[in-house]
Amino acid sequence: MRKIRLNLGQRSYEILIGRHAIDQLGKYLKKLDLGTDAYILTNKLIKAKYGSQISQALLKSGFNCYFKLVADSEKSKSIACVGGVINDIARRDFKKRIFIIAFGGGVIGDLAGFVASVYKRGIPYIQVPTTLLAQVDSSIGGKTGVDLCAGKNLVGAFYQPKLVLSDTAFLKSLSTRQLKAGLAEVIKYALIADKNLFNLLLKKRADILKYDPSVLEKLVYACSLIKSGLVSRDEKEALDKRTLLNFGHTLGHAIEAAGGFSKYNHGEAISLGMLAAIEISKNLELLKVADAQAARSLIKFYGLPEKIGKLSLAKIISAHFHDKKFKGNKNKFVLLVSLGKAKVVTNVGSEFIRGALKSIS
Amino acid sequence: MRKIRLNLGQRSYEILIGRHAIDQLGKYLKKLDLGTDAYILTNKLIKAKYGSQISQALLKSGFNCYFKLVADSEKSKSIACVGGVINDIARRDFKKRIFIIAFGGGVIGDLAGFVASVYKRGIPYIQVPTTLLAQVDSSIGGKTGVDLCAGKNLVGAFYQPKLVLSDTAFLKSLSTRQLKAGLAEVIKYALIADKNLFNLLLKKRADILKYDPSVLEKLVYACSLIKSGLVSRDEKEALDKRTLLNFGHTLGHAIEAAGGFSKYNHGEAISLGMLAAIEISKNLELLKVADAQAARSLIKFYGLPEKIGKLSLAKIISAHFHDKKFKGNKNKFVLLVSLGKAKVVTNVGSEFIRGALKSIS
Repeated sequence: MRKIRLNLGQRSYEILIGRHAIDQLGKYLKKLDLGTDAYILTNKLIKAKYGSQISQALLKSGFNCYFKLVADSEKSKSIACVGGVINDIARRDFKKRIFIIAFGGGVIGDLAGFVASVYKRGIPYIQVPTTLLAQVDSSIGGKTGVDLCAGKNLVGAFYQPKLVLSDTAFLKSLSTRQLKAGLAEVIKYALIADKNLFNLLLKKRADILKYDPSVLEKLVYACSLIKSGLVSRDEKEALDKRTLLNFGHTLGHAIEAAGGFSKYNHGEAISLGMLAAIEISKNLELLKVADAQAARSLIKFYGLPEKIGKLSLAKIISAHFHDKKFKGNKNKFVLLVSLGKAKVVTNVGSEFIRGALKSIS
Repeated sequence: MRKIRLNLGQRSYEILIGRHAIDQLGKYLKKLDLGTDAYILTNKLIKAKYGSQISQALLKSGFNCYFKLVADSEKSKSIACVGGVINDIARRDFKKRIFIIAFGGGVIGDLAGFVASVYKRGIPYIQVPTTLLAQVDSSIGGKTGVDLCAGKNLVGAFYQPKLVLSDTAFLKSLSTRQLKAGLAEVIKYALIADKNLFNLLLKKRADILKYDPSVLEKLVYACSLIKSGLVSRDEKEALDKRTLLNFGHTLGHAIEAAGGFSKYNHGEAISLGMLAAIEISKNLELLKVADAQAARSLIKFYGLPEKIGKLSLAKIISAHFHDKKFKGNKNKFVLLVSLGKAKVVTNVGSEFIRGALKSIS
């Protein structure tokens, strides 16, 4: 098993990565002394597949377990769901030694983290991500949130987990589409921060798409290392360090929104956003033409979407203006300067944005 | 105008206290540079009385103002209300330079603070409390929250305001019952931390009950000073410093809950809780009989309730066991050791609790 320590002073925690890491969950939890009663937030599918594994790991270390199922959909990230889950926790919390386990993908992680952050002004929680997207990205760094009519993740908190345990054995049950959505984020890490990871992705494509466990473990480890480094230097995204993780996300979010959050999943929208950001980087002469070509090729190599299809450009641009990170009429893009290196650029001209969107139209 | 600085490192802020302090709101806000658009959360009554004063103070300094009205009732502290307010903020937040002003009593302060803490993972807010209870207590220290079916303040965050501005001129429109509810908290501060305040309350009763502005200003200042000192030493109530502020609250909350949150208001329930805590302090021989008598007399002197009337003891004791601060079967009481000094005691025997409740039955 591989370990990473995310350094954040008193809020530091470990990220454990490995096949069958779940078997050691009880042991690590005992050391952390978070409580006696584990409240496992998950969905029906994950409980059916891996519920007995997680409950056995907890029971053999003397923890009590409760499962709480939420729907396997972005709709679970709602204020109503937060209220329902907290009322349920309060009913089970008679010993006042309850803690939360987020057991699932990004939706469950975001919801569980937010619930933990606000129940009694904060109780401990841990992340046990089961998708590649959650293992490499959303489970790390303490961004939690739920959606409102007015926008995604409009309600949330920065609230760090006490442990992240990524069991890569869970990844074998992902659909190809889910795996690829996670790979889009892996490609993001390679492009912004890790030339070696870029090369690994080029070399090991066949193994990765065959769910080879040892290669997937390498990917999760490499991404977790990059993310934990950036988060520890800029927890609240105030210094343009953590911001680098938004590569592809500025227009990616707008594409996701313009598609009504159904046409493309997060990873697919991010792929398109990365293609647009690569085009802007090249056109602003920050990135060499050959590097832009190599970056684009990697995205295509993994069969991620290359064209926004019938989505209206006007809709995407309007969604982009409503992005919650857009401040005082200044946009903010993460752009590539070479393979494995990115920087934050503000106030990118609208002609470059339109040009980039046209290049993927 | 009097000023107190609450020291919390980067989260430090000022508390301004004085008659017509509101006129200087714009000036202070400009210095703080929180944004351009003030979103004022308040209720109909306060807007009718003081809305033009606050909007003029803001407009003359170049701020835009929006008023958002919520019902003047604990029912506004709900998850549904949080969602409604945030959707409304998001609609007005097109410039991304919005901040929140909590303009009202404790309900509005708790709701506004929580909304500010979770909208986009945190935007700035300030407190402009209009009741004595809010000025001396709830506006300071960053405890925010809303209620659930399962309990009061079960959802919340520690999230500090950027400024507290207590205009004591607002207090003249309080009903006698509201004034007295605030005085219950003032008495609490006197008993746990300030013998001079105790003497002032004894000497100036007539002036206080006549809403004498200069004496009320002294009370608000003295209490704010004590609270800010304790909060700066123990922001998250982890070290038994801030806990001292819960004097009278352990059984007070239980009495409030047993009365269905309608029989007694918060201040009245706290008065009864203080009388019970004084009895326990005396019976555990922590507090001299004469001091216990003097403490009790002060509460009676202000016409606060002395008896729980027809409330069932069993109901109060059951509510007490469900208190969210009750951990691992150990209760925690703040008890007096002398007039102006208190300490935290855990595991008070149930016979003392029953005895104390009987003494106010």
